[in-house]
Amino acid sequence: ISPRDYQTSHRTIQLPGLVNIAAFVPGLVSRDTDDLQSVSKASVAAGFSMIRVMPVAKDGSITDVKSLKIAQQNGKRGAYCDFNLSITATSDNAHQISHAAGEVGSLFIPFNHLSDNISKVAAVQAHFDAWPTHKPIITDARTTDLASILLLANLHNRRIHVTAVMTKEDIKLIALGKEKGMKVTCDVSIYSLYLSQKDYPGCQFLPTAEDQAALWEHLDTIDVFSIGSLPYQLAHFLKQPTDVAVGIADALPLLLTSVAEGKLTVEDVKTRLHDNPKEIFELHDQVGAGLEVEIDRPYTLKATGSWSPFTGKVLKATVQRVVFQDQVVCLDGSMLPVPPKGSDMSTHGAMPAMAAMA
Amino acid sequence: ISPRDYQTSHRTIQLPGLVNIAAFVPGLVSRDTDDLQSVSKASVAAGFSMIRVMPVAKDGSITDVKSLKIAQQNGKRGAYCDFNLSITATSDNAHQISHAAGEVGSLFIPFNHLSDNISKVAAVQAHFDAWPTHKPIITDARTTDLASILLLANLHNRRIHVTAVMTKEDIKLIALGKEKGMKVTCDVSIYSLYLSQKDYPGCQFLPTAEDQAALWEHLDTIDVFSIGSLPYQLAHFLKQPTDVAVGIADALPLLLTSVAEGKLTVEDVKTRLHDNPKEIFELHDQVGAGLEVEIDRPYTLKATGSWSPFTGKVLKATVQRVVFQDQVVCLDGSMLPVPPKGSDMSTHGAMPAMAAMA
Ligand SMILES: [Zn+2]
Ligand SMILES: [Zn+2]
Ligand SMILES: [Zn+2]
Ligand SMILES: [Zn+2]
Ligand SMILES: [Zn+2]
Ligand SMILES: [Zn+2]
Ligand SMILES: [Zn+2]
Ligand SMILES: [Zn+2]
Repeated sequence: ISPRDYQTSHRTIQLPGLVNIAAFVPGLVSRDTDDLQSVSKASVAAGFSMIRVMPVAKDGSITDVKSLKIAQQNGKRGAYCDFNLSITATSDNAHQISHAAGEVGSLFIPFNHLSDNISKVAAVQAHFDAWPTHKPIITDARTTDLASILLLANLHNRRIHVTAVMTKEDIKLIALGKEKGMKVTCDVSIYSLYLSQKDYPGCQFLPTAEDQAALWEHLDTIDVFSIGSLPYQLAHFLKQPTDVAVGIADALPLLLTSVAEGKLTVEDVKTRLHDNPKEIFELHDQVGAGLEVEIDRPYTLKATGSWSPFTGKVLKATVQRVVFQDQVVCLDGSMLPVPPKGSDMSTHGAMPAMAAMA
Repeated sequence: ISPRDYQTSHRTIQLPGLVNIAAFVPGLVSRDTDDLQSVSKASVAAGFSMIRVMPVAKDGSITDVKSLKIAQQNGKRGAYCDFNLSITATSDNAHQISHAAGEVGSLFIPFNHLSDNISKVAAVQAHFDAWPTHKPIITDARTTDLASILLLANLHNRRIHVTAVMTKEDIKLIALGKEKGMKVTCDVSIYSLYLSQKDYPGCQFLPTAEDQAALWEHLDTIDVFSIGSLPYQLAHFLKQPTDVAVGIADALPLLLTSVAEGKLTVEDVKTRLHDNPKEIFELHDQVGAGLEVEIDRPYTLKATGSWSPFTGKVLKATVQRVVFQDQVVCLDGSMLPVPPKGSDMSTHGAMPAMAAMA
């Protein structure tokens, strides 16, 4: 019994291996970088056994077979958790990338991202027509663009997932669409639930306090919690070191602190970090992956290698043990000296990953 | 028997009084102008016994009770055909104008007009929520805005009419929406069917030749032919006199010339200038209104008081006789000395116009 055990009552909870459906890997399409490996390592240490890598990176996007190959090569340098790759729609690559559909997990249609914008209704429709029917499509469309792509998805009878929803207007629109039977799902960046423009005035990629309140009110509409690129963008905005792992370790302690405070249930978290991601993105169940968390013991977050806006704040949950492929890989926050055993799961549904790479 | 009768075989056709669903009245919301009267006179001479006045004018828009009153006063100066007025949505007048709904024929939600733009999904939804359920809503939204408003109309279970459709992309989107059972209707400006950017390079409010071809290919998707503000805009663009009657007299001779050439049937025209406008905008049937046209006799269009881009071109149809309230008002292109007997029909469906004005 350590002295900490006397501080307060607490509980230990088991969770299955979690999924980050929007992992931001800055150097994804640069040759010979370890960013994907580093992100996978921080992810598994934080309880994520599967990451879906966003195809939009700091150095470019996966938009064709060539950029996809670079990301795949980076994946072969070894990952500490499973991952899958996606591909980004442009105004004119609909036909071309449909040939690569078997090698990626999903199609991303960007409206607001670092990459080139697709604003043309015709271009979006070309993608809906070319992309395999059962393969997921994700978008970051907002306001009138969001309404637009929801209509086009509906007209083409496609499911669509809206990523990083941040405003009252957008979450309400998605709620209404769901109510009317549209096949739409969405995620919210975890940082959006805990940080707002009230904390960081002028930071346009954070919600306003009113938007943030609306996100919490529409919890039932939020299918998935994600990490996304928001932590990286915030670090950059605040001129803090943009470590590739920024924001990953904060995810679960933040959400489970809300559990400790009665704002969320453990089931709310498990549904949005495991059950729904698996279902929406048709992911393998990962046998032998799981974690143990401790809830209800308050502590002050200490500075670590990665910058965090929550350093110095009181949190009430910690990840204590992470198991991947039936092996303990992280204990009390420290990675054990295990080799990277994660796989590129992008081809799941087509054929086993190994055969595709052969 | 006049000498003209020997030139070629021809046929005389009777049509019911026609409807221009988008009449542009430049001075609509200026005090004490005769623009509405002048437009009504040119309209009845051209075969239109009913005009739906666009609430967006050269000098401002009808956006509140005050501007509506000015337009109503202008209407009382006497009109030569029946008319109704509409009101324009702004970002924040949804509640206010719902109180004026009984006094106008429809709500116009502008995206691309001279007035202020409504781009916010929330503002459009506020209008859908506030505007009486059975009253028509019209929009000029294009591309992604068009897709957006179609979704919102669908989610709110509202009919919507899209005015002055001009591109291949938009007409295809509307065709797809109709195919999927959406309650959407549309009109095309008659000038868009006969003039393109090939004729007037750089004229952005005319369709490209490719767009124009798509409009003709999607004739089944076009519910209504309209006049709209396009003739006025074109005159302005070409630095021609912007007579308020510009484009009105050209409408029927152009369409019936296409009948003479086998590109349209008389029924195609009647459906789009009478039957569908009545049904979509829930208009009174006008007893004692009608016209007689002569088709198949070619003639060269001569210059008149109003500038026309078709002057000097060969047309094959003329309006010969127009009857309004059982009285001949126009004969062989000359107005007879009749008093203005048209009424403000805006309140139809609520209560008779006279009672509402008392
Ligand atoms: Zn091919
Ligand atoms: Zn299509
Ligand atoms: Zn599982
Ligand atoms: Zn598999
Ligand atoms: Zn009121
Ligand atoms: Zn609503
Ligand atoms: Zn009739
Ligand atoms: Zn009536």
